[in-house]
Amino acid sequence: MKIGTFRTGEKWLVGQVDEVAETVSPFELDQDQASRGVLSLIGRDAMPQTGAPVSLSELELCAPIPRPERNIFCVGKNYFEHAHEFSASGFDSSAAKGAVPEFPIVFSKVPESVISHGEQIVLDPEVSDAVDYEAELAVIIGKGGKGICAEDALDHVWGYTIINDVTARDLQSRYSQWLVGKSQDTFGPMGPWAVLKQDLDVANTKIQCSVNGELRQDSNTGLLIFNIGTIIETISAGLTLKPGDIIATGTPAGVGIGFKPPKYLQAGDIVEVTVEGIGTLRNECRLTST
Amino acid sequence: MKIGTFRTGEKWLVGQVDEVAETVSPFELDQDQASRGVLSLIGRDAMPQTGAPVSLSELELCAPIPRPERNIFCVGKNYFEHAHEFSASGFDSSAAKGAVPEFPIVFSKVPESVISHGEQIVLDPEVSDAVDYEAELAVIIGKGGKGICAEDALDHVWGYTIINDVTARDLQSRYSQWLVGKSQDTFGPMGPWAVLKQDLDVANTKIQCSVNGELRQDSNTGLLIFNIGTIIETISAGLTLKPGDIIATGTPAGVGIGFKPPKYLQAGDIVEVTVEGIGTLRNECRLTST
Repeated sequence: MKIGTFRTGEKWLVGQVDEVAETVSPFELDQDQASRGVLSLIGRDAMPQTGAPVSLSELELCAPIPRPERNIFCVGKNYFEHAHEFSASGFDSSAAKGAVPEFPIVFSKVPESVISHGEQIVLDPEVSDAVDYEAELAVIIGKGGKGICAEDALDHVWGYTIINDVTARDLQSRYSQWLVGKSQDTFGPMGPWAVLKQDLDVANTKIQCSVNGELRQDSNTGLLIFNIGTIIETISAGLTLKPGDIIATGTPAGVGIGFKPPKYLQAGDIVEVTVEGIGTLRNECRLTST
Repeated sequence: MKIGTFRTGEKWLVGQVDEVAETVSPFELDQDQASRGVLSLIGRDAMPQTGAPVSLSELELCAPIPRPERNIFCVGKNYFEHAHEFSASGFDSSAAKGAVPEFPIVFSKVPESVISHGEQIVLDPEVSDAVDYEAELAVIIGKGGKGICAEDALDHVWGYTIINDVTARDLQSRYSQWLVGKSQDTFGPMGPWAVLKQDLDVANTKIQCSVNGELRQDSNTGLLIFNIGTIIETISAGLTLKPGDIIATGTPAGVGIGFKPPKYLQAGDIVEVTVEGIGTLRNECRLTST
């Protein structure tokens, strides 16, 4: 089941997407709930009733979780080939530990960085001239908890979506900790929608990124160094995970800094992140308007 | 003016504290507002009216901002002597860049780590056996913005409070990025209350920490490597700061790992962080109950 968050005028709508019919069947939710996007569906025993389908063309697509309730958890260097390309790029402020991490590298991205499919990634050359894409599978937590062991971790997952973990490489390196370089305004494209846990085989799901139609990243979530169970076990050991928490699981090889010379994002570039079974998250880059 | 957040039964109260009379004069706020703590006062042209004073002894003290709206921004290695002691401790996963950072190191701490003055810091030896204290002056943003220059930055400050940036050193080092080691449950003591910007001279304010009465940290906020203006300029360059954002500005020398052997926090330890002009934030450590 594909679940999207939409607006039409001032009204919010969360609904089941039918890509063939190009419609959304909205769940019966009040506006306070619907404005929270798919967060409004988490923790329920059953999905709410749906109403009559609405044409997708009449709706403005929003991020599945338009405003996460706290910073998005993100995992760094979590595919072998990417760990090597990042380590070799000269931007890796964690390089002292070697290319491939022994333990998950966990950082965060502010909630307000989130934009939806179709919104624009804004480049400000006065702040960064080294903006990069990162295709990632993102986990949406359904059941919170602490001390969750890896074997039980999937019981705590509600579903999945796609995040493009857009990164200012120069800031990521300059400030040593990655928060600022990862949290620039518009640097959190999410969507186009979410899928339920049972609809995705995370042990074998294709993940790709193309820029202006050129395939740059082409991997499989089965190649994660630390799988979702291990990531959830690591974060939740002493930090209580909450329903609605989002964890971006890391990006495969093929980011801009993996090329010589690096292929940074430029105004007009179109970045498409595809995760098989979810969809394609598409965002264009533009220069800041000053 | 000292402003605290309190509860009495189910009722929230935000008020002006009179430490001599040991009373609180509550601001006239509805319960939805008051439950946000001092966030409810930010962005107003004038402070709300206050009602009749209530005895402090009748109230339960809460953190001034019981639940920050997004992760707390924190600055690392921001006093010279502490930068050297941390770098020499073996726990510094950013050490490749040298002891004293060239640029601010900015990371975050989850909102739910916040506890109030008087609440207990919980130690779980199965998760970390290297928990440390960090006395910090915390800035509360009043006026949001992007591209704020250092000279104008204090116009964006609403006030200040104290944060003990409690840290699991082993996790901080193991996971390379510091989020997890800094965000363990109860690792964000904040309070006892907030003061307005005009009530503190941040260029010359004493900051101290004692453990069981032994003075461990003894410095002055005038010794920050990157002052508050520079920190706000750095973060806001491409990331829009919001009213109510909190920035913990870094800790001076004298943390537990600065000693040989290290002096980690133990169950029963009482940690007191004092910032002149604000007050003393006191928290006891206890073992987790399993």
